Amino acid sequence: MLYFALIMSKKNNYFKHFLSIDSLSKHQIQDIISVANGFFNQDGSIIQSTALQGKTIANLFFENSTRTKSTFELSAKKLSVNVLNVDINHSATSKGESLLDMILNLQAMQVDAFVIRHPNAGAPLFVASQLKNEAVIINAGDGSHSHPTQAMLDIFTIWQHKKDFQSLKITIVGDILHSRVARSLIMALNIMQVGEIRVVAPRTLMPSNTDVLGVHYYPDIDEALVDVDVIVMLRLQKERMNHAYIPSGSEFCHQYGLNETRLKLAKKDAIVMHPGPTNRGVEIAPQIADSPQSVILNQVTNGIVIRMAVMMMTMGADT
Amino acid sequence: MLYFALIMSKKNNYFKHFLSIDSLSKHQIQDIISVANGFFNQDGSIIQSTALQGKTIANLFFENSTRTKSTFELSAKKLSVNVLNVDINHSATSKGESLLDMILNLQAMQVDAFVIRHPNAGAPLFVASQLKNEAVIINAGDGSHSHPTQAMLDIFTIWQHKKDFQSLKITIVGDILHSRVARSLIMALNIMQVGEIRVVAPRTLMPSNTDVLGVHYYPDIDEALVDVDVIVMLRLQKERMNHAYIPSGSEFCHQYGLNETRLKLAKKDAIVMHPGPTNRGVEIAPQIADSPQSVILNQVTNGIVIRMAVMMMTMGADT
Amino acid sequence: MLYFALIMSKKNNYFKHFLSIDSLSKHQIQDIISVANGFFNQDGSIIQSTALQGKTIANLFFENSTRTKSTFELSAKKLSVNVLNVDINHSATSKGESLLDMILNLQAMQVDAFVIRHPNAGAPLFVASQLKNEAVIINAGDGSHSHPTQAMLDIFTIWQHKKDFQSLKITIVGDILHSRVARSLIMALNIMQVGEIRVVAPRTLMPSNTDVLGVHYYPDIDEALVDVDVIVMLRLQKERMNHAYIPSGSEFCHQYGLNETRLKLAKKDAIVMHPGPTNRGVEIAPQIADSPQSVILNQVTNGIVIRMAVMMMTMGADT
Repeated sequence: MLYFALIMSKKNNYFKHFLSIDSLSKHQIQDIISVANGFFNQDGSIIQSTALQGKTIANLFFENSTRTKSTFELSAKKLSVNVLNVDINHSATSKGESLLDMILNLQAMQVDAFVIRHPNAGAPLFVASQLKNEAVIINAGDGSHSHPTQAMLDIFTIWQHKKDFQSLKITIVGDILHSRVARSLIMALNIMQVGEIRVVAPRTLMPSNTDVLGVHYYPDIDEALVDVDVIVMLRLQKERMNHAYIPSGSEFCHQYGLNETRLKLAKKDAIVMHPGPTNRGVEIAPQIADSPQSVILNQVTNGIVIRMAVMMMTMGADT
Repeated sequence: MLYFALIMSKKNNYFKHFLSIDSLSKHQIQDIISVANGFFNQDGSIIQSTALQGKTIANLFFENSTRTKSTFELSAKKLSVNVLNVDINHSATSKGESLLDMILNLQAMQVDAFVIRHPNAGAPLFVASQLKNEAVIINAGDGSHSHPTQAMLDIFTIWQHKKDFQSLKITIVGDILHSRVARSLIMALNIMQVGEIRVVAPRTLMPSNTDVLGVHYYPDIDEALVDVDVIVMLRLQKERMNHAYIPSGSEFCHQYGLNETRLKLAKKDAIVMHPGPTNRGVEIAPQIADSPQSVILNQVTNGIVIRMAVMMMTMGADT
Repeated sequence: MLYFALIMSKKNNYFKHFLSIDSLSKHQIQDIISVANGFFNQDGSIIQSTALQGKTIANLFFENSTRTKSTFELSAKKLSVNVLNVDINHSATSKGESLLDMILNLQAMQVDAFVIRHPNAGAPLFVASQLKNEAVIINAGDGSHSHPTQAMLDIFTIWQHKKDFQSLKITIVGDILHSRVARSLIMALNIMQVGEIRVVAPRTLMPSNTDVLGVHYYPDIDEALVDVDVIVMLRLQKERMNHAYIPSGSEFCHQYGLNETRLKLAKKDAIVMHPGPTNRGVEIAPQIADSPQSVILNQVTNGIVIRMAVMMMTMGADT
C-alpha cells in the first residue's frame, strides 16, 4: 500500500472513471501496476484491507459474466467495499427505466461506484459523460469496444514475467475483429511501446485497419510464433462458428490452435496467456493450458489485484 | 448517533416490530426523524457504523422490488448488519412451507430481523402476531395496505425542507385507491397534524371513505395545487390502464400530470415528491422531475437513513 | 474458542477437506462437537468473530437448497468469511466448463474453500482428489451418498440432550434407501458406538445391506419406538410417491407417521428430530413438531455452529 500512499498524496482521486485504455499514459499504466503489485503478500496471497470501508459498489451486468462479476465482487471485499449485485432482469430497468436513471437512483442510495458490463459499445462512457457528480464508472466490458481491466491484468501478467516491454515480441491469435479483449490489449501494448505485436486470425476475423492498430498481420500461425516472448490465445466464441466466419472447431484447431509443436517455435521461456474460459482442444491443447509456460491462472489472480488497484485509484482518497 | 443513545437509555428496544404507521404517535415519528437525521455526516454522506455488528437480517421479498430490496440491503450494510437475500422462488416456501415455518427456521439460524414484502395485506402483521420470541418483523410493503418505511422517508423529506408540519398544505395526486404509499403517507401526515391534505384522482381510483382518511378530495388538479407547499405525485401503475380504470397514459398526463404550468399554481418554494420509479411524461414532466424543486432523489437517499433508523430502533439495544 | 485454540496448537489445519463421515474417528467427532459448542454465548446466541477474516468461501450449489446454502452463508459471516454465491445457471460451467476448471479458476481468484452440493455421488471427493494445492472442499450433500455436516449437527443435537452415546437407543424412520441424511447419520452413530440403531421403512425404501450398516430393521414403527431415547423422522420426498414406492401421503402417515399415541411408546424424555423441512401431517403430526420433545429448531441452530466448526477446522490455522 506504500506506493498507493505515495501517488495519492498528490491529489484526491487518481482517476475519475476507468472507461478505456486509450486515454491512459505509459506512466499511468506503470502506476496501476505498482499499486496492484502492492496488494500481494510475500507468500503470493492477497491482503485483506479496510482501505475502502464504508464505500459501496454496484455490479450492473447487462450481459451474463459470472467470472468477471465474481472477480469484481471478490476484489471489492478484499478492500472492505460493500457490494450490491443488482438483478438486472428483475430491476426497474427491465420495466423501461433508463440506465442513467438507475444509476442516479443508486447513487442517491449512496452507491459510490458502478461496475458496468453492457452489450452496447460506449454505454459506460455515455453514462459517465451524463453524470454531474462524483459517482465513479468502471467499464467491465462494452460490446466489442473495450475491456480495460482485462487489458490491464494482461499487461500486469506480462510485466510480472518479462519486466521490460520494449524488447518484447508478442503474438495474439484468434478473433481480432470482434474481441474487446484484443482491442484493449493491443492499445495497452502500444502505449507500453512493445517491440513487436503480431496478430494471427482467419481473414474473416481480422479488422481492416491493422496499420492503425500498430500490429503486423500474419495469416500463418507458425510464422507468427517464431521467436516470440508472449503468446496470447483468444477464446473462440462458439457463435462465430454458427455464423460461418470459420469452418468448424476442429478445422480452427488445425489451422490456428496452439499445440506443443507450435509452442516450440517461440522462445524457450515464452509465456502462454488466455483470457479464459478456454476451449480446450479448440484454440489451445490441454497439455499447453496446464504446462509450466501457461500463466492462465496467474492472469485470473492478477485480475483481483488489478481490480483492487482500479477501485483504490478511483474511489480512494489520500488519508 | 447521540440522539439514538439518548432515547435508548430508557429501554431495550424502542420498537418490537415495524409494521404500520397507524400505531405510531407523533412523538415516535419525531424520534425516528431524529435518529435518521443523526446518520448524516456534515457533508451529506451517510456514516458507516458497527452499531449492529453481529446482527443479521433476511430479505423476504414475495413481490419483486429491486429498488426497495437494495435500500434495505445498503442500509443494513451501513450498520454492519449481515444480510441474507432469500431466493423465494427456489426456497422451501415455494414447495409449500408456510411463511411462518420459514421464519421460525431462519430465526433458528440466528436471523434477528425479517424484512417482508408480501402481496397479501396483513401478512407481516399476521407473522408478527404468531411469533412468541424476539424476532423483529419489518413491513416493506404488504398488498395495498401499508408501506411504513416509505411513508417515514416521505415525512422525513418534508421535515428536511419544511420543518413545521402544522402550517403545511399538501396535495397527493394519483391512484389513491390502490396505493399503499398514499395510504401510509396520509396516515402519517394526519399524525403529524398537517394543516391540509388534498387528494386528486380519477373517481375510479378514489376510495369512498375520504372523510375517514382526513383528506379533501379534488377532482381537478389545478384547483388542488393552488398555494400548496408539497406536491406528491404517485406512480401510475401500467396495469391500471389495462383494467380500464383510466383511459390511457397520455389522457392521464393531460388531466392529472404535473407540468411547469401547473407547478406555478403552487407556492414558489413548493417541493415535488414521487416514490419512484417515475413514468416521465405520464404523471410527471421530465423537466419537473429534474428541476430544483424536485426532491425525488433526496427521498431515495432519505430511504437509507430511515431504514437504518428503523433497524436501530428495533434491533439495537442500549450499550 | 478456547477449545479450538487448544486443538489447533498442534498442527496447521485440523482437516484438509470435509467430505464424508466414514473417515472420521470418534475422537475427531468429539473435537468437532467441542469446537462447535464453543461458539455459543452463555445466553444461547452465537458469537460474531473475526477468526477467519480475509478468507473467502464459494457456495457451489448444483442442486437448489436455499436452506443449506443459507446456513453456510450465515455461518461464514459469523466468522467474517467473505461469501461468494456462484450462480451456477449462468456460470461458465453451464457452458461446458468442468467443475474442476471452475474451482481452479475460483481458487486463482483467492477463494479458499468450496462448499459443494452436487446431484452426483462422489463429485466433491473427485474434485478434492484432483486438487494439488491448499483449496478446501466441504461436501454439502452429494447425490444419495453423503451429507456430513447434516450428520454432524444431528450428532451434536443428540449430544446436547443426552451426552452419553453408548447407552442410547435411536430409531430412524423413513426413506432409508435414498437418504444421504440417514446414510451419514447411521455412520456417525456407529462411530459414536450408539447402543442400538433401529430403522423403520417400507421395504421398497430399505437398502438390502442392513447388517453392513449396523442397524436393526423394523417393519413396524410401533415396535421400533418402544423405549427409545431418540427418534429421527426423515422427510418424505414427494417424488417418491409419484414413483410408486409408497401408496400415498395419508397411507404413509397412517403406517409410519409419528403422532402422540406413538410418541408415548418411547422413553418419557425421548427427543424428536427431523432434518426439515417437515411435511406436517405426513411423516410427523403438527402437535409433535411443536411439542417440547421436538428439537427440530435446535437442529437448525446447531447447523450454524457445526458449519462454523467445520470452516474453522479446515480453513483456520493456529494464531
